[in-house]
Amino acid sequence: MNKPQVPDFLKNIRVVLARPSHPGNIGSAARAMKTMGLTRLYLVEPKTFPSDEANTLASGAVDVLEQAVVVPTLAEALTDVTVACALTSRRRELTTPLSTPRETTPELIARAQDGEQVAMVFGNETFGLSIDEVEQCNRLVTIPGNPDYFSLNLAMAVQVMTYELFSHSGVTVDYLRAEGETATRGEVEGFCGHLDQTLEHIGYYRRRNGERLMRRMRTLFNRAGMLREEVDILRGFLKQVQRVADGHVQHDDD
Amino acid sequence: MNKPQVPDFLKNIRVVLARPSHPGNIGSAARAMKTMGLTRLYLVEPKTFPSDEANTLASGAVDVLEQAVVVPTLAEALTDVTVACALTSRRRELTTPLSTPRETTPELIARAQDGEQVAMVFGNETFGLSIDEVEQCNRLVTIPGNPDYFSLNLAMAVQVMTYELFSHSGVTVDYLRAEGETATRGEVEGFCGHLDQTLEHIGYYRRRNGERLMRRMRTLFNRAGMLREEVDILRGFLKQVQRVADGHVQHDDD
Repeated sequence: MNKPQVPDFLKNIRVVLARPSHPGNIGSAARAMKTMGLTRLYLVEPKTFPSDEANTLASGAVDVLEQAVVVPTLAEALTDVTVACALTSRRRELTTPLSTPRETTPELIARAQDGEQVAMVFGNETFGLSIDEVEQCNRLVTIPGNPDYFSLNLAMAVQVMTYELFSHSGVTVDYLRAEGETATRGEVEGFCGHLDQTLEHIGYYRRRNGERLMRRMRTLFNRAGMLREEVDILRGFLKQVQRVADGHVQHDDD
Repeated sequence: MNKPQVPDFLKNIRVVLARPSHPGNIGSAARAMKTMGLTRLYLVEPKTFPSDEANTLASGAVDVLEQAVVVPTLAEALTDVTVACALTSRRRELTTPLSTPRETTPELIARAQDGEQVAMVFGNETFGLSIDEVEQCNRLVTIPGNPDYFSLNLAMAVQVMTYELFSHSGVTVDYLRAEGETATRGEVEGFCGHLDQTLEHIGYYRRRNGERLMRRMRTLFNRAGMLREEVDILRGFLKQVQRVADGHVQHDDD
């Protein structure tokens, strides 16, 4: 299976960092974005930018930093945006409905697919978003977490939110799955019959309830999701057991 | 609404870092875990531990580091575990089925609730998990991401996986929602009638299709999810408009 493409509409989703203090977080956020297929980073009044520290932490995502748009106010980062999500972990006395990344993402994806520009807005590391900044957004998003220790690092929050977006983008991990043909019901049943016959043949059923034993074995092998190759290996083993039992083969330890 | 408790069964879910090289990642992973209510960290053959760097990056999660269990082999970290998930981003020639964190999590939560011990196993920053390590796990988990840049940092991967677990833990963000009573259908309709009457009264409908205009307004205010308080503010405004129109009030700019 071929490696899938990052869908084009992700270009319509931007990450906005409002007044970030630590250059390292800008770099880590860029890396987090790129791992999830996002490239458009806006920086509102960053304390330090560009910087070597940001470049180092961005690792292979320096291109995201190079294309970053630096603006003096949040309003300028949102001019052409229809839906802006304020990421917040505090209780806000605002009537904007609060939702989780998972609840919000389908709408964001749908709008981005329609060509609208959407934004995820993250506040300063220490102070978060100001009331004024939150009021410029039309969605309030909170990442669920430990109510007693809500200390999600800025870049970690970007990672979680962009992961959530990517996981709704329609790109699956199927291309990473190993290929292997699942055995059919007939093949599994053929193996179970062979096992039954072998257990009988070597006298394993003596003084045991063979029917009950085979029912357990059948349940196990049906549950295991056997591949054709595994069935072949096990049937080869059973054949060898029968040959040994019939005296056609020398035991290795003879 | 009261702050919810972290559910007790999360204690049955452990994070295992196999051969981590960078002390900073151990600290960031501990912080990531604690933000998502997890506390049990196992370190297999860490290059450096304990360390000041890990403590610094753990921030308020130093307790997780202090309780961390250091073991010489992965097998020892998994002895009492029933389900161990190997986190991997590479295509593996293994027939263990590959799934995403979202697909895997319900099973992990159910087992932890039943008292089973489950583990999420993360490999070395540079080399990932060895074949031998992966074979000691019975699930293969891949975080979906940009197929062209899969460079998720170790602690970021821990954050995403633990976020996914927490988001299935049943703890909601309801306690963070601002309280505000949603207006009933009758209240919204009462407001719309009042608006209609006001627009008529001030002559806004002259040469306009009033019925069509009100239909648009009704759609808008029904969609907006109005709160009772907002209805009250707007009806107060309409009353004032009518008083002004009737000449009962002086305009501010007179």
